[in-house]
Amino acid sequence: MSKRMVVIGGDATGMSAASTALRHSAEGELEVVVLERGHYTSYSACGIPYWISGHVPDGDQLIARTPEQHREAGIDVRMRTEVTAIDLEKQSVGVRGVDDGDTYELGYDELVIATGAVPTVPPLEGSDARGIFGVQTLEQGEEIVKDLADGDRRRAVVVGAGYIGVEMAEAMVVRGLETTVVDQASEPFTQVDPDMGALIREAMEGMGMTVLTGVSVDGFDVGEDGRVRAVRAGDTVLPADIVIVGLGVKPNAQLAADAGLTIGPSGGIVTDARMRAAPNVWAGGDCVEVHHRLSGQNVHIPLGTHANKHGRIIGTNVAGGYGAFPGIIGTAISKVCSLEIGVTGLGETEADAVGFGYVTATVESTTTAGYWPEAEEMTVKVLAEQRTGRLLGAQIVGRAGSGKRIDVFATAIWNGMTVEEMTFMDLSYAPPFSPVWDAVLVAARKAAKEVQGEIPASPV
Amino acid sequence: MSKRMVVIGGDATGMSAASTALRHSAEGELEVVVLERGHYTSYSACGIPYWISGHVPDGDQLIARTPEQHREAGIDVRMRTEVTAIDLEKQSVGVRGVDDGDTYELGYDELVIATGAVPTVPPLEGSDARGIFGVQTLEQGEEIVKDLADGDRRRAVVVGAGYIGVEMAEAMVVRGLETTVVDQASEPFTQVDPDMGALIREAMEGMGMTVLTGVSVDGFDVGEDGRVRAVRAGDTVLPADIVIVGLGVKPNAQLAADAGLTIGPSGGIVTDARMRAAPNVWAGGDCVEVHHRLSGQNVHIPLGTHANKHGRIIGTNVAGGYGAFPGIIGTAISKVCSLEIGVTGLGETEADAVGFGYVTATVESTTTAGYWPEAEEMTVKVLAEQRTGRLLGAQIVGRAGSGKRIDVFATAIWNGMTVEEMTFMDLSYAPPFSPVWDAVLVAARKAAKEVQGEIPASPV
Repeated sequence: MSKRMVVIGGDATGMSAASTALRHSAEGELEVVVLERGHYTSYSACGIPYWISGHVPDGDQLIARTPEQHREAGIDVRMRTEVTAIDLEKQSVGVRGVDDGDTYELGYDELVIATGAVPTVPPLEGSDARGIFGVQTLEQGEEIVKDLADGDRRRAVVVGAGYIGVEMAEAMVVRGLETTVVDQASEPFTQVDPDMGALIREAMEGMGMTVLTGVSVDGFDVGEDGRVRAVRAGDTVLPADIVIVGLGVKPNAQLAADAGLTIGPSGGIVTDARMRAAPNVWAGGDCVEVHHRLSGQNVHIPLGTHANKHGRIIGTNVAGGYGAFPGIIGTAISKVCSLEIGVTGLGETEADAVGFGYVTATVESTTTAGYWPEAEEMTVKVLAEQRTGRLLGAQIVGRAGSGKRIDVFATAIWNGMTVEEMTFMDLSYAPPFSPVWDAVLVAARKAAKEVQGEIPASPV
Repeated sequence: MSKRMVVIGGDATGMSAASTALRHSAEGELEVVVLERGHYTSYSACGIPYWISGHVPDGDQLIARTPEQHREAGIDVRMRTEVTAIDLEKQSVGVRGVDDGDTYELGYDELVIATGAVPTVPPLEGSDARGIFGVQTLEQGEEIVKDLADGDRRRAVVVGAGYIGVEMAEAMVVRGLETTVVDQASEPFTQVDPDMGALIREAMEGMGMTVLTGVSVDGFDVGEDGRVRAVRAGDTVLPADIVIVGLGVKPNAQLAADAGLTIGPSGGIVTDARMRAAPNVWAGGDCVEVHHRLSGQNVHIPLGTHANKHGRIIGTNVAGGYGAFPGIIGTAISKVCSLEIGVTGLGETEADAVGFGYVTATVESTTTAGYWPEAEEMTVKVLAEQRTGRLLGAQIVGRAGSGKRIDVFATAIWNGMTVEEMTFMDLSYAPPFSPVWDAVLVAARKAAKEVQGEIPASPV
């Protein structure tokens, strides 16, 4: 008796769940139907800024697997097909063809909700003008690439200085546009603390970008041709030939909410550890909230790395195996041209919100031995809990070769290490790869000293 | 009442112990005397191959602090001064000027033995010929730099394919010499398993080097001018204008042994966790053996990173603080031109010797997203204990940007993680930095599957 798995959404979580479940099921045991509203499956949204910059020359390179490839693997992929409703009792979904409007009901034994996220769009005057773009889907990427090729675009304004904001700022600068980034926070990239954000601002300014912070965008001036002319932010009018809006995203959970599934305070679908939202109903990726191992709270952190893990876990469970998501600790990495930014754990604001008392330590180091000709600068900031010394968070801002060190901190946090325990860890050293005291160890030592207080008789 | 700290050896451990102790002692409380046989203090021996290759243009760059700088910090550094004997009972050392032959006794309250290591030199015919060099001290580096500049050196033979061997092979190739590396093992770089060593061989051959393995060097042919002409290895005669011998080192522990201190099976001085060899006598760096956290055994692993940690710990303890060395797990990194090699934990031979049952998993991945133009290949091998799944070791062989990932494995081993626990760790992802599944996670997952066995109903 074959059972039917219906997957809503054909990107990372959905296709990974579909593939994993099928791979681990006996021949003919599982029928898998994927319903995808757009034109593409399994693509790297994180790569879009680099396609726009031209660094990745072809958008097709961002597609890990096409619908045809998935079909060859035995998955019934239905493109340009959206789900209008979920009926948990009848175990069926309402389906509608986006282009032809045809509707039908589709019954399921296992349902996977992988509807992703939708961009946060402030209700601003003129925001529907031509020349204003989000950067979430391959279709949007395509529009931007075409728009840049179409006309004489000299001035870009990027609204929002988070991941998408700084990555799109890089893309615009690489494309030769005069680029301004606007954000309402005091410093760019609020995933790190303001003192580290100030380093990012400095670097971005050094790359020729204009960084306007502490400023809210009020609206857009639109020309008679229906195209954006400028961004208005307080008293400032920023002339713009193209505008990129990267103000983050929120879970696309309306369908799940309408079906009566539980939505958490973050707006994401609530699941158990196995990514189950209800009996035989699974959810993962950008539409769910996840457990933060440090804060103990549920948060919405839409990242491809979590989405892929969720998909694999769901597929494993659907196939009768056991998969459980262990939660997240907020690890992420990004770059603006040659500047790398890594972050894991909690920043000061997050730690304050949870109520943790903490010390901080910031050190400057190099990616290699100081005398190595290619040595690059890096700044590392560490947060450790008061008294216990438990590592709560780490932030890295530095040049090429610095950012991926964040994974060492992430692994330490994952294991509940104290900064004192990290002080003499056996990390690798050779002159082309790090100073004899790797920045990770130096930062941990400085934080341990802060935790301990400066007791002259007991130096660290 | 001032007390006197006497330090034998003015490199990483010795100078770090001296500086740390002095920094954490009250003014006038501690007198620090360092006795150094050579011409230099606090230098990066690990950087010598890169000075020889010319990548680091000036040998002075390898000197972190000169004797003068140490003296300005208040340390009584006595250069070209060797210690001939240690009298534990009288708490004094016999001192002799290397150049003038003057001798005197020097009493101590605290003694630090940081005598380093001496090269393993096989008793081969012709091994004292001109043109044959070790690469351990700055003085030796200087000799090689001079020798290469002096005459027409076209063919180099490097004896030994460990760290020094492969790094010196790089130096010779960069200097334009036709380079042959000879080693008696089946594959180069026995710090990794032969299957990974084969990848290193392949890469070295791709760089134009000749790699001769499974071959013992029998002796050297010497010309009438007293200079080496060729290396003889079995039936093979390898013409050589210059020969580099990098056959590893052994602890320089004779002085300590003569004084009655305990020497371990590895030949290194035995210390407690605080690096104490006897009451008021401390030892650290390349002359001691250290605790391996995985094997539970004491081993001799002469690396600058341990030496610096030992120095800081000894200095802390001498100043009345508390410092303890937590042991090592065998982490190291090296490179041959663009090939990076990282290793941590136990390899197969080591795991066999300890008696661990284990599974292995090897995966191929890339340093970045596969579509990233600068994506580089890397191979990762993981060893996990049978049944428990505890991570026992990891080895990385790959191109630029791969090697430092070894620190993530090292941190996981340090914390006793199982490969199953690592499978969904929250590591950083963005296309310029890793595939969405970082190689670390892919290797862990594959190993976890091996541990579990392939049970169809319970896929990993």
